[in-house]
Amino acid sequence: MIDGISPLDESAMAAARALHARLTKPAGSLGALEELSVRLAGLAGECPPPLPEPAAVAVFAGDHGVHAQGVTPWPQEVTGQMVANFLAGGAVVNAFARQVGASVTVVDVGVLDDLGWAPAPGAVADRSRPGLVAAKVRAGTRDMTTQPALTREEVSAALEAGARVAFTLVDQGARALVTGDMGIANTTPAAALIAAFTGSDAEAVTGRGTGIDDDRYTRKVAVVRAALATHRPDPADPLGVLAAVGGLEHAAIAGFILGGASRRVPVILDGVIAVSAALAAAALAPDAVGAMVAGHRSAEPGASVALAHLGLEPLIDLGMRLGEGTGAVLSVPIVASAVRVLYEVATFDSAGVSEK
Amino acid sequence: MIDGISPLDESAMAAARALHARLTKPAGSLGALEELSVRLAGLAGECPPPLPEPAAVAVFAGDHGVHAQGVTPWPQEVTGQMVANFLAGGAVVNAFARQVGASVTVVDVGVLDDLGWAPAPGAVADRSRPGLVAAKVRAGTRDMTTQPALTREEVSAALEAGARVAFTLVDQGARALVTGDMGIANTTPAAALIAAFTGSDAEAVTGRGTGIDDDRYTRKVAVVRAALATHRPDPADPLGVLAAVGGLEHAAIAGFILGGASRRVPVILDGVIAVSAALAAAALAPDAVGAMVAGHRSAEPGASVALAHLGLEPLIDLGMRLGEGTGAVLSVPIVASAVRVLYEVATFDSAGVSEK
Repeated sequence: MIDGISPLDESAMAAARALHARLTKPAGSLGALEELSVRLAGLAGECPPPLPEPAAVAVFAGDHGVHAQGVTPWPQEVTGQMVANFLAGGAVVNAFARQVGASVTVVDVGVLDDLGWAPAPGAVADRSRPGLVAAKVRAGTRDMTTQPALTREEVSAALEAGARVAFTLVDQGARALVTGDMGIANTTPAAALIAAFTGSDAEAVTGRGTGIDDDRYTRKVAVVRAALATHRPDPADPLGVLAAVGGLEHAAIAGFILGGASRRVPVILDGVIAVSAALAAAALAPDAVGAMVAGHRSAEPGASVALAHLGLEPLIDLGMRLGEGTGAVLSVPIVASAVRVLYEVATFDSAGVSEK
Repeated sequence: MIDGISPLDESAMAAARALHARLTKPAGSLGALEELSVRLAGLAGECPPPLPEPAAVAVFAGDHGVHAQGVTPWPQEVTGQMVANFLAGGAVVNAFARQVGASVTVVDVGVLDDLGWAPAPGAVADRSRPGLVAAKVRAGTRDMTTQPALTREEVSAALEAGARVAFTLVDQGARALVTGDMGIANTTPAAALIAAFTGSDAEAVTGRGTGIDDDRYTRKVAVVRAALATHRPDPADPLGVLAAVGGLEHAAIAGFILGGASRRVPVILDGVIAVSAALAAAALAPDAVGAMVAGHRSAEPGASVALAHLGLEPLIDLGMRLGEGTGAVLSVPIVASAVRVLYEVATFDSAGVSEK
């Protein structure tokens, strides 16, 4: 799969730039949307690229052994409860997905609760009701402050689960993939991953997640720093980094990104969990960055560090820090609009509009 | 109409804040979207407020006597040609409106070309094809460097035309109004209006519009400065400011905003033309600001000056500078999503999700 991820197609990008110059608007007047549409042409290898719709959100859920270190005031049971909320259509990501016409698929890659479902790998549910993919690799990670969070085999299984979800959704017709996540305490491994892949200090990439107080924030930074000091993860060994300080949903999202990139379908990244996973995906396959679209800038400081490292500018910046895919799914109409321009806007010639 | 514009309803806003606290998400995790939904509850006077859909874009078109001063390389005939492009559905605003399910209505308040249409005031066309409202007040403004651009009567007529479009669209079912504009050279009067209402220097609020070179930019700043020096418009006399240095589409958009505000329907502002008109609307009726939603931050420097003066934070910031309503219409799904949360997201109690 990784071998199938190749660079953006320069000739399709040149064709998109040339087309933009003929459309009835001043050159460059669509700002970042022009370059976005050019990149998507390069990804697809044709101009115009396919419209990135329908979009499919996959919410990867997992629990975290590091919860025992008191990094969050939320009880761990909330992860499973929120999975039920997604399946009932009552979470914010469901509301936003309905707004933009995206499907929501929930993937259990590591929830502590057994969720009452027998595993049925690969069963992606229909769009009328959010569906569940049962792909639990293990019931929560180990506490990364005392041991590696995962084995390399567990990381591989989560990567494969994520890629399989991407393939299934694309096979079912999705033309854009949107990353989502749920996991109480999962901003802690995200911070550790970002520190490991970017070489940043723990404090620079650790945020307040759901909104923790100063004491807990101090503890959270110390936990991230301790885990990094214990494992000294090597950024040149992405599986090792994910095993040492990652999470199952982080690994699965990395696989989901790689799966989308290998099918040349844009993958719209949500917040800090998604971009920490994107760093792992980029370390495994640098050309995968070509498939990444930064949906929004999370309020978590680590998200901006990771986006800068990836060279991505986000489409939306509204101080959101909810996860679930909420920031990314909001950007779907913007991504689609950028491509629509290449299909639907008249040229100066065809519309009989004078040029300057 | 202006007397009917009242402050936001504090009790509806308090109800929206209280509802947010019960929804299954960490407090404040939706960032700016939470306060937006609270404001829209205050505007509607009920919680939840109506979903802001369908949205209706009105593109107000006019020409400018100041074009004679060489402020833009585009020929004036492009205004009328672009009106035809809007009506044929071939402009960027049409593509974006299709993406988000908004209608597009084109309003001729001052195009130089006669457009070949007999005036038919109040005739708002159907949504399947962009329609034209023929409401020409005069064929272009006068050159503001040599005389007032408009008479006070002409300003009043344009304000009324804009308000009438707002009323008609709301009567036809629109639950959000989106401002759009077309007018070669219209960033020049926009800059002059912003300077007049905010007390800023001409250079701080004048931009490169469609992308002019340094020589032309220097000339444009001098033109704005000269017009302000000649007329010394008094910001306490908004009609006088619009008459001295405004444009017909600027005045009409101000009326459109006031019309929407008086019907308590949100008005999503586009770029520099819209926010210059919003300053006039706010000067006429300060409570109208409660109905304004800043759709995006235009790359034109004057737009940021005006937004700061109005106390508005934009939803999207992508370096766009096209006008037509393109930036504002892109934000429609974001505005709708903010309200949708109040209708569709489960509470901690109803979803059985534990709190921290």
